[in-house]
Amino acid sequence: MFENASRTEVSLLGEFGLIDHIAKSFTNKQASTIKGIGDDAAVIDKDEENVTLISTDLLVEGVHFDLHYMPLKHLGYKAVTVNLSDIYAMNGIPQQITVSLAFSNRFSLEAIEELYAGIKRACDFYGIDLVGGDTSTSHSGLMLSVTAIGTCKKDQVTYRSGAKEHDLICVTGDLGAAYLGLQLLEREKKIFLETPGAQPDLEGFDYILERQLKPEARKDMIQFLHDNKLKPTAMMDISDGLSSELHHIAKQSNVGITIYEDKLPIDPIVYNNAQELGLESTTCALNGGEDYELLFTIPQSLFELVKNTEGISIIGHCTAAGTGINMVSKAGTQYDLPAQGWKAV
Amino acid sequence: MFENASRTEVSLLGEFGLIDHIAKSFTNKQASTIKGIGDDAAVIDKDEENVTLISTDLLVEGVHFDLHYMPLKHLGYKAVTVNLSDIYAMNGIPQQITVSLAFSNRFSLEAIEELYAGIKRACDFYGIDLVGGDTSTSHSGLMLSVTAIGTCKKDQVTYRSGAKEHDLICVTGDLGAAYLGLQLLEREKKIFLETPGAQPDLEGFDYILERQLKPEARKDMIQFLHDNKLKPTAMMDISDGLSSELHHIAKQSNVGITIYEDKLPIDPIVYNNAQELGLESTTCALNGGEDYELLFTIPQSLFELVKNTEGISIIGHCTAAGTGINMVSKAGTQYDLPAQGWKAV
Repeated sequence: MFENASRTEVSLLGEFGLIDHIAKSFTNKQASTIKGIGDDAAVIDKDEENVTLISTDLLVEGVHFDLHYMPLKHLGYKAVTVNLSDIYAMNGIPQQITVSLAFSNRFSLEAIEELYAGIKRACDFYGIDLVGGDTSTSHSGLMLSVTAIGTCKKDQVTYRSGAKEHDLICVTGDLGAAYLGLQLLEREKKIFLETPGAQPDLEGFDYILERQLKPEARKDMIQFLHDNKLKPTAMMDISDGLSSELHHIAKQSNVGITIYEDKLPIDPIVYNNAQELGLESTTCALNGGEDYELLFTIPQSLFELVKNTEGISIIGHCTAAGTGINMVSKAGTQYDLPAQGWKAV
Repeated sequence: MFENASRTEVSLLGEFGLIDHIAKSFTNKQASTIKGIGDDAAVIDKDEENVTLISTDLLVEGVHFDLHYMPLKHLGYKAVTVNLSDIYAMNGIPQQITVSLAFSNRFSLEAIEELYAGIKRACDFYGIDLVGGDTSTSHSGLMLSVTAIGTCKKDQVTYRSGAKEHDLICVTGDLGAAYLGLQLLEREKKIFLETPGAQPDLEGFDYILERQLKPEARKDMIQFLHDNKLKPTAMMDISDGLSSELHHIAKQSNVGITIYEDKLPIDPIVYNNAQELGLESTTCALNGGEDYELLFTIPQSLFELVKNTEGISIIGHCTAAGTGINMVSKAGTQYDLPAQGWKAV
């Protein structure tokens, strides 16, 4: 079956290319489907005023997590929060999740209990219910599939496609820490494997470790937006890295984007940790991913409301369609910003 | 992490034991959660008249399917129908699905396209939309996670828990074929592996092969129930085998159950095929699983309406709580019917 004459590697398309390719052959038939593939969550008609939001993520051992350094309780917690993040990114409120699990007999009941303890902790913290799932054996390793179900007022849903020229580009929190945490854990794992018994040297790295191992979804920021009747024109969460997400917003909103390197929210701790680890903090902020912060756009008229808000940084603005995605460096030079792989010059 | 002093094997609990064990530590907090873990689908409040139904299933290569004989297009089709079956089993109508996929680089783009062609065919046949999902690489094999989203009138939802003493037990279609199809495919696989180049001998087995490789969800039967304003007191789909499902109904409805061997809907083709394969058709019908027929209970007052309906068999009735799950054999002897492992005597 796998030796057909014509064989194309999926890697030629990449994940987003594959999704685009598959999505092309599907058309929506149900009147209740408001938005299908292509945003942080699907949008389904609920009642006169509200929609249902559905988002799903897959976490595969050895691809998305490494149990050498990821405690199972943290993994359970993270598996939930990354899905909730997608519902918040639509400007919605998650209410339920389902969790499906495949695991090999390497996992004891105690290990599975640890995983669910983390899932429960996230459910309690975010006020959501675990309402279903499936369990299965697997021949190798652990895999989780989480689906989050949320709700949102119809006129409050934020898509990736609503940004307009001149809109301001905002980011919550700070960027780059989760990626740095991962690099540190990978470094310590390598040392441990080469020198069994070696104790990990994690002192001074608490913040980046927590951002990697126990990320939070920005429920608080969605609450802030709601409280201030501030509806972004476009929004998504930053899971694959800022550059990649900016490309999604630009493509789906048909705008160009210019951001400023000196406006990137990089915590001083992250800047210092990056130097200690021999990495460029700007690169980590742009391409690192897994920060689960929110990226959103607002009309310029809201500048005064947002500019002094703690936890929100204005990093640039939308430009005319076709002008590309650009970054103005600290030295004042403008560079193209590819979805991945930007290098400081 | 896996070498703790106390280690309990998950297999001691079994799948249902594990789900019960985990579910105990979770309590629902959201007012919109009507029914969480424990039925074919979760039930979430939608509007004044309707609920949203959510069901999810995991399919793992080497556990749930074998690509030696399962064409990828059929696998895609089946992954969808088994999830839709859970929504129908709540007396609901599925409208959307999400599909998440993890696959190794053994799978070409053409292979993934085949899989999605099957998914699309099921979406088209059942009139549902693919609205989202996730894709990931895996280190070994293929894994699918499908979530189905449906809707149902509030007063029409059928749980496993509503059966009453004296209710009649009904089954749609016929049982045992899917399991026989699997046994045949396993036999031919073995022959093929022992004698490369051997051609499979599948003549006369079309029906059981189709039931295994391309099962359908009983949308037509739900339509029949709706058209006849016939609301079952309890319902679920038969995915793990009739005996196992009868135990779920009995436990959750707090009733006993008696069924009659000579009432089991076994197609003459299935009876003959079972003999040819050296298997007992009653055992296949009771424990085989994967038939995706509907098991439901109705009040005796509806006997006249149902008794001559093609495609519905009345196989027994509910008895007083605590009287167990029993089968009266063709010879008139009554036997205990365990959830699995019943043997013809």
